[in-house]
Amino acid sequence: MARYPGTHTTGRGGFMPRTKRGNAPSIRDVAAVANVSVPTMSRYLKDPERVSEKKREAIAAAIEKLNYRPNPIARALALDMSESITVMSADTRLYGRTQTIFGIERKAQEIGYPITICVLDPRGGERMLSNVRSCLDRSPAGVILIDFDRLTDSVVSRIPASTPMVIIGGPRHERRAQIHLCEYDSAYAMTRRLLELGHETVHYVSVPADVDARADGWRMALSDAKVPAPAPIATTWDAEDAIEIGRRLGEDPSVTAIFAGNDEVAMGLMRGLTLAGRRVPDDVSVAGFDDHTLSKVWNPPLTTVRQRFSEAGEHAVALLKEQIDDVVNDCSRGEAWTVFDRIAGDLVERESTAPRRS
Amino acid sequence: MARYPGTHTTGRGGFMPRTKRGNAPSIRDVAAVANVSVPTMSRYLKDPERVSEKKREAIAAAIEKLNYRPNPIARALALDMSESITVMSADTRLYGRTQTIFGIERKAQEIGYPITICVLDPRGGERMLSNVRSCLDRSPAGVILIDFDRLTDSVVSRIPASTPMVIIGGPRHERRAQIHLCEYDSAYAMTRRLLELGHETVHYVSVPADVDARADGWRMALSDAKVPAPAPIATTWDAEDAIEIGRRLGEDPSVTAIFAGNDEVAMGLMRGLTLAGRRVPDDVSVAGFDDHTLSKVWNPPLTTVRQRFSEAGEHAVALLKEQIDDVVNDCSRGEAWTVFDRIAGDLVERESTAPRRS
Repeated sequence: MARYPGTHTTGRGGFMPRTKRGNAPSIRDVAAVANVSVPTMSRYLKDPERVSEKKREAIAAAIEKLNYRPNPIARALALDMSESITVMSADTRLYGRTQTIFGIERKAQEIGYPITICVLDPRGGERMLSNVRSCLDRSPAGVILIDFDRLTDSVVSRIPASTPMVIIGGPRHERRAQIHLCEYDSAYAMTRRLLELGHETVHYVSVPADVDARADGWRMALSDAKVPAPAPIATTWDAEDAIEIGRRLGEDPSVTAIFAGNDEVAMGLMRGLTLAGRRVPDDVSVAGFDDHTLSKVWNPPLTTVRQRFSEAGEHAVALLKEQIDDVVNDCSRGEAWTVFDRIAGDLVERESTAPRRS
Repeated sequence: MARYPGTHTTGRGGFMPRTKRGNAPSIRDVAAVANVSVPTMSRYLKDPERVSEKKREAIAAAIEKLNYRPNPIARALALDMSESITVMSADTRLYGRTQTIFGIERKAQEIGYPITICVLDPRGGERMLSNVRSCLDRSPAGVILIDFDRLTDSVVSRIPASTPMVIIGGPRHERRAQIHLCEYDSAYAMTRRLLELGHETVHYVSVPADVDARADGWRMALSDAKVPAPAPIATTWDAEDAIEIGRRLGEDPSVTAIFAGNDEVAMGLMRGLTLAGRRVPDDVSVAGFDDHTLSKVWNPPLTTVRQRFSEAGEHAVALLKEQIDDVVNDCSRGEAWTVFDRIAGDLVERESTAPRRS
């Protein structure tokens, strides 16, 4: 099984024709037939009301005669705005982002917008801001920022208030459209449920995020139940790193319930508990967060919070479309620019949690 | 936990300013200062050699004087080509695609190209071809087609030979650049390995794909070992559907080795085997394909074939860049247009496979 070679010799025989759009009429052809200038044509494509009625009629006749179909690039140039929705996100391989982007893709395709992906450096700083700048340089029609890494403060301040934008997740930004996934509430409910099952406390293993609404919900539920909170344990996005944490927690017989910041981490913890000789859920209950596709087939199937990621993605596109329409129509800005919509999660109890054995 | 409302009332107060690029000089400003026409400026941005030396110098001086930074949309219009790489793929939530797209994103960002995602309808037919047409209408700089669903015949014939394109996976297309993931070879090697462990035969559970190189490799390994092949069992991309298949196979005591078309299916099978009271690997060996992130943390960790998806994505961008450079430079076409590069998989033996118990 040969690996591909690192370099390629590029032969130089044969002629490579330049990419062509065939014989489709251009904006220039239409302008010539209508006997107007190209800037007038641009103005017409941007806002027909700004062109005199006589010229409007001449252009409309020329468009019909030539069967002209506006070149999307030319149209974007006229509006100084590309026809693409830019999705900004850190690591797109992680489950929640993949699902959210899928919802964005599906809805954007439905309304005829291509999506462009702008990958942000999750370490933040100058590299990330440079990613953001180069994406904005391309004048997207609008931006959807997936903020599961809580990067927004520095990113949002770089995006002009006049640029259509919807933020999914992250801390609240006043005066911006945002979709809130209610993680605090869901984490509170899951922790309370584990306490109801008779566990004396609930240990929490957190995924990376500067501000962790999930951890806050867990902490508040313990506090409301007058249960001291054990120190939360930080882990990475890599499920493998949770195995060792699960093994260590498994060696402490007082640990009977663990809540993980996401499902992959919960899976790693369960593997570690198995290696430590503890059974799930007989000895230790484990709950996750997200309802990963594989949670249902895990052994045992995982209790978790179902997050409606793809629904959030679809809704973000719908909100963004309202903002884009405002820009295109040069009209007043509506609620779509500042709305704060909630898409709540659901508790899904499967077989990885159980009443505490007495 | 309120759900977001289905509709929004859009207030109409306040004025929404049109998106502006600020006071950045345009191609027209530079043309005016250089005392050349806008088409000459376009020609200069496209290929400076086509402009007389005198005008070249005047334009270069004007660019410096105005601190002109070319508008990418204007540049794309001049070349009749956008500056975006379009990635075509069916369902982008599936593991192999997510990883491949991540590699494409990383490399494209490195060389300064945004990527646009074009989601293909995996059922093919007119809807899919309409997806393809609308993406091509936007004149991408190049196309990367992820063909894990073997959709290429109808898609590839729609993409002009002069459009830069790299295909990842799928059956071989002569005269096109393609990256081959050697699935046949890997499936052959995995099946042979299971036979070496003493299993009398290996059952195969296939994922959807019109032409399944993995199934072919499995069949050939059995044939070479003079072992009759049991009928392969078809399943969906949804791991949950494999649970029932695992349960049924588990009820047949002659089944001691199962090879799954991907890791998620292998995980579903293992859950079904557990429900049927069979232990993995003591009673039944299970192998997967892909090396999914969660394979390492599965209980027991999954034996599989590691596929180098993100490496394939990065390599596709490198090949595409060579083709794009050919188009931009209007030069002869090189090997990058027709190359067939192999990125082989690796067998990864973990704890879900074992010698057959006598």
